Amino acid sequence: MSKPISGILTPNITPVDSAGRIDEDTLRRYIDWLIEKGVDGLYPNGSTGEFVRFTPQERRRIVQVVVEQAAGRVPILAGAAEANAQETIEACDHYGAMGVRAVAIVAPFYYRLSDQGVYAYFREIADRVSVDVTLYNIPLFASPISVDTVVRLAAECPRVVGIKDSSGDLPNMMRMISQIRPMRPDFCFLTGWDAALVPMLVAGANGGTNATSGVVPELTRAIHRSVLDGDIKKAMRLQYQLLPLFDAMISVGEFPEGFRAGARSRGWDLGPGRVPLSDHQLDAIQSAQRQIDDLLYSYVDEHSETASNDAVDKIVQQVIAQLQSQQ
Amino acid sequence: MSKPISGILTPNITPVDSAGRIDEDTLRRYIDWLIEKGVDGLYPNGSTGEFVRFTPQERRRIVQVVVEQAAGRVPILAGAAEANAQETIEACDHYGAMGVRAVAIVAPFYYRLSDQGVYAYFREIADRVSVDVTLYNIPLFASPISVDTVVRLAAECPRVVGIKDSSGDLPNMMRMISQIRPMRPDFCFLTGWDAALVPMLVAGANGGTNATSGVVPELTRAIHRSVLDGDIKKAMRLQYQLLPLFDAMISVGEFPEGFRAGARSRGWDLGPGRVPLSDHQLDAIQSAQRQIDDLLYSYVDEHSETASNDAVDKIVQQVIAQLQSQQ
Amino acid sequence: MSKPISGILTPNITPVDSAGRIDEDTLRRYIDWLIEKGVDGLYPNGSTGEFVRFTPQERRRIVQVVVEQAAGRVPILAGAAEANAQETIEACDHYGAMGVRAVAIVAPFYYRLSDQGVYAYFREIADRVSVDVTLYNIPLFASPISVDTVVRLAAECPRVVGIKDSSGDLPNMMRMISQIRPMRPDFCFLTGWDAALVPMLVAGANGGTNATSGVVPELTRAIHRSVLDGDIKKAMRLQYQLLPLFDAMISVGEFPEGFRAGARSRGWDLGPGRVPLSDHQLDAIQSAQRQIDDLLYSYVDEHSETASNDAVDKIVQQVIAQLQSQQ
Amino acid sequence: MSKPISGILTPNITPVDSAGRIDEDTLRRYIDWLIEKGVDGLYPNGSTGEFVRFTPQERRRIVQVVVEQAAGRVPILAGAAEANAQETIEACDHYGAMGVRAVAIVAPFYYRLSDQGVYAYFREIADRVSVDVTLYNIPLFASPISVDTVVRLAAECPRVVGIKDSSGDLPNMMRMISQIRPMRPDFCFLTGWDAALVPMLVAGANGGTNATSGVVPELTRAIHRSVLDGDIKKAMRLQYQLLPLFDAMISVGEFPEGFRAGARSRGWDLGPGRVPLSDHQLDAIQSAQRQIDDLLYSYVDEHSETASNDAVDKIVQQVIAQLQSQQ
Repeated sequence: MSKPISGILTPNITPVDSAGRIDEDTLRRYIDWLIEKGVDGLYPNGSTGEFVRFTPQERRRIVQVVVEQAAGRVPILAGAAEANAQETIEACDHYGAMGVRAVAIVAPFYYRLSDQGVYAYFREIADRVSVDVTLYNIPLFASPISVDTVVRLAAECPRVVGIKDSSGDLPNMMRMISQIRPMRPDFCFLTGWDAALVPMLVAGANGGTNATSGVVPELTRAIHRSVLDGDIKKAMRLQYQLLPLFDAMISVGEFPEGFRAGARSRGWDLGPGRVPLSDHQLDAIQSAQRQIDDLLYSYVDEHSETASNDAVDKIVQQVIAQLQSQQ
Repeated sequence: MSKPISGILTPNITPVDSAGRIDEDTLRRYIDWLIEKGVDGLYPNGSTGEFVRFTPQERRRIVQVVVEQAAGRVPILAGAAEANAQETIEACDHYGAMGVRAVAIVAPFYYRLSDQGVYAYFREIADRVSVDVTLYNIPLFASPISVDTVVRLAAECPRVVGIKDSSGDLPNMMRMISQIRPMRPDFCFLTGWDAALVPMLVAGANGGTNATSGVVPELTRAIHRSVLDGDIKKAMRLQYQLLPLFDAMISVGEFPEGFRAGARSRGWDLGPGRVPLSDHQLDAIQSAQRQIDDLLYSYVDEHSETASNDAVDKIVQQVIAQLQSQQ
Repeated sequence: MSKPISGILTPNITPVDSAGRIDEDTLRRYIDWLIEKGVDGLYPNGSTGEFVRFTPQERRRIVQVVVEQAAGRVPILAGAAEANAQETIEACDHYGAMGVRAVAIVAPFYYRLSDQGVYAYFREIADRVSVDVTLYNIPLFASPISVDTVVRLAAECPRVVGIKDSSGDLPNMMRMISQIRPMRPDFCFLTGWDAALVPMLVAGANGGTNATSGVVPELTRAIHRSVLDGDIKKAMRLQYQLLPLFDAMISVGEFPEGFRAGARSRGWDLGPGRVPLSDHQLDAIQSAQRQIDDLLYSYVDEHSETASNDAVDKIVQQVIAQLQSQQ
Repeated sequence: MSKPISGILTPNITPVDSAGRIDEDTLRRYIDWLIEKGVDGLYPNGSTGEFVRFTPQERRRIVQVVVEQAAGRVPILAGAAEANAQETIEACDHYGAMGVRAVAIVAPFYYRLSDQGVYAYFREIADRVSVDVTLYNIPLFASPISVDTVVRLAAECPRVVGIKDSSGDLPNMMRMISQIRPMRPDFCFLTGWDAALVPMLVAGANGGTNATSGVVPELTRAIHRSVLDGDIKKAMRLQYQLLPLFDAMISVGEFPEGFRAGARSRGWDLGPGRVPLSDHQLDAIQSAQRQIDDLLYSYVDEHSETASNDAVDKIVQQVIAQLQSQQ
């Protein structure tokens, strides 16, 4: 039984050049930066990576570049969803042969499948692939994977080694952990909802695949470490720093344009993205850029471990004071 | 200014063989049958055709086979959505060169785009393609295209010649017709929600792209003709026949498996589909098959023009009697 | 077996004076006007009448005033929902003793009950009241009453004589009619969704309880008569007149403030309503007032039977031309 | 500036006798038991208390009995929503005169008000009452109160002293705390979503109004104390005990019947409730009763402070082991 996947894995944006092609040079340099900043893994072809906006050939190239560049420094979780079960299985095996730690497969999208259909889809894949599989639940975009289905797949399929859950539903995370961990201690629970990262970790999740880690890897790393150290007060203080940044980036233009703007604040030009934007949206992104710059300014200026944002600190100190005053 | 696309266009199921490959022979014979039964057009790579479950290469092959086999007998509306705007534009031009009447482009899916993003996407495509475009609104599966966005695209883009709306929202259909028809009499309004086909036609829609037309083309044709003839009572009588059949087919297994079962009732083995099904789902489809067989039995036995289903007729006569008793 | 309730019943706004009390004088004069304009019935304590914003005592007074003033000229359908089944039963019997044709009972709200709970609630009431009951389905505001539950109650409860459905779901209306009318020809189907009045009537509904009938009773009456006469083209032409008016009134301030503004356009000052409004909302209502005035201007100027709105007529003629050009 | 309301306040079920009347004797004894078990306050006329199913007179009587019986031992938060703003204001003042700590006012329900309407409603009330007010946000049942509206009311209205949020939206709780606490340190944040009690407290909420506290007051008290003590591991262990119990009680029959069954497991016969139930539902509740009995058995057997459930402990120890193994 292998150790569960854990820590913060970055679902990296896929840089493109002005002609709309994958910008491999920037991708390689960006991967290096993320690893240097301490991310625990990389997750190419995630939602933040706009996997559906690339062709099957491009998706394979993206994983290849990431695997090559990571060169074993951190594990790779490769998004492997293709047009149907057969194509997905072939992609899984392809990525397995490249040496990824596991693949992540989003539930079927466009059509909303029933629980039965979602189960049948993952069971078909899990029975035939030669690589570890993590389920990817993102009910906002794809067919929901119910708690019961996750439990059933965990019980029946040794190849299914984890769930990446982006629903943000904390009680459901607890329902999964309480039912699966006793029978599958190797099973990993990753959260993709940055706004609730600390509570998810406190509830026992092994880590997160968080878009914000592509912008402030130091902060998400510090959050994870604080929880591991049992310093929940510090973790919550950092979560209060993360939330306005996440809110600013999630709400601008079309996803993941706000995160692209965030990366720009950190000095990364990841290109124009693959979705056409209206003039109105381009203006909105430019305004948001300034807000994101401001949010990042005080933060980037110092090391994350000692990061301090006065306004946030004031709030946190009041929370603590208030908790103590009740005793 | 060309005549609007009109009548009933069949979003045909894509037959596959036991190995999961496109079954071109069956597809050709099925197309012939549909044309002989009087459908007004064909719509390959629609939702019923499971377009997302085929590869880009397969999607092109499907349209090619349909265009070849139709051989000009009926117009073709080709589903052309690909991974991103650039790939979609290339597919559009490719299908245009094949001689399709128009392409149909579903709004971006997976990510839910804002109104602005949906507008920017279609505007980008409409400005660059060399073929007529119909918008495809199916909010259950893809980003919704708002009434305002349809009106704006109709006003700005000569290449946008119609909307295929599968929302089933009748007042929204009326809102679009009342705003667009005065400025664009060539613009076509097609409904994809079979359960409200007659009301949509009565409200002024030009036609429908209805999955049921792949099973009972005689019935959907008779409905369209009855409305054209002004015989709304007959049209409603037929709509009351269509509804239980539609309900039986829409609710079984995963979409479009119920319609595949319906085609089987008409003698067509269109293969196993491209979505894995659980044993439980396979049993449910087998049970539904019998119900669908029964619903079709009395109907198929006779010519559609004189079709009569006693139970339905009784209801309809009561409706009429009741209407008359109020006068 | 009695004749089903039919035609257009007005869910009248409840006039209040500047002190917020029921304005009985205005209510009586407004009722007279509605009856003179040809409404087929009155429906006090409906959603448009803001029943939840009045006390139990006030609700009883409202029905009493309406019954007295109508004086048998038109039937009364009295909204009778109270805090619980027991209180509702008492209100039903009280209204029955007053001589109302039937009561209308909305499904329980606040809590969203399950199908079983909705069934149990109506069954409890139907078994114990001494007056005819219509079910009131408005899933936007209250627990939804499923098609199966309506069919079951129609089969089991002689006291349940109809359904007032404000969901606007046309296929569901057809599902109810096709299952209930054969066994209960006396059962009435009323639609509360003005935007689809004609299609609902064409599908066999007996009538409507439409808020717009409190503003343009001539128009809703003309629609109903046109459908009875089989003149569906005229009915649809009028529906195209009704829709922008309905849209203008439904979307302003809080419901039913837009309809109050509509009544004001017709010369009725029904008071300030019972819901506090922000300054921003008061401004919006004032702007909407002008738009509603404009929409009503050409219409009110003439008799409804010959009403003509040039813009609308143009659209309708194009619809007809387009239908004919396809033949 | 007064100290914020804090701790666990019980939204008590309202006992009724076999004739459906308020069972005042049982209510008094139940209140005594809750206080003895350590709840920090009582919240009559909450959703769990079925406030909408009682008459205005009954609601006043319920609060009177609770205030009398509590006799100052714990603060009372009285649900005060009535049919409209005027009636609500009168109820507020009435309860204020009785000596309640504050009233809780749910956002308007039935109609879904806009942000503007929700603001205007609470502003109207807050400007005119003579008692402290807590806002009650429960978007599942009533108009949602947006974060912006809460912030605005907190800034403008000294009488608004808190928010009881039953949405379970943890990031929204953090958004409110971070914006309001710096300007209103006296403002209290209470969560009504038991499934996320610990995370909400860790994020800085002052307490909860939790239906489970009416069944296992020792457990919810222990959770609150553990968080105050900074023992988050213990708090999460207890949360993992609370969750299956909450799930069992929330999902049976109609709300709050599962909690009534839970109270029965603790020896309290709180009567039949005020909502009619089908035979099918009564059977389901009886089955659930056994499951709830089992869940409570090991727990009730011992003091809550030392409560141990082997299965749960195993899970928790694995969580801790897994966290440590990552370091």
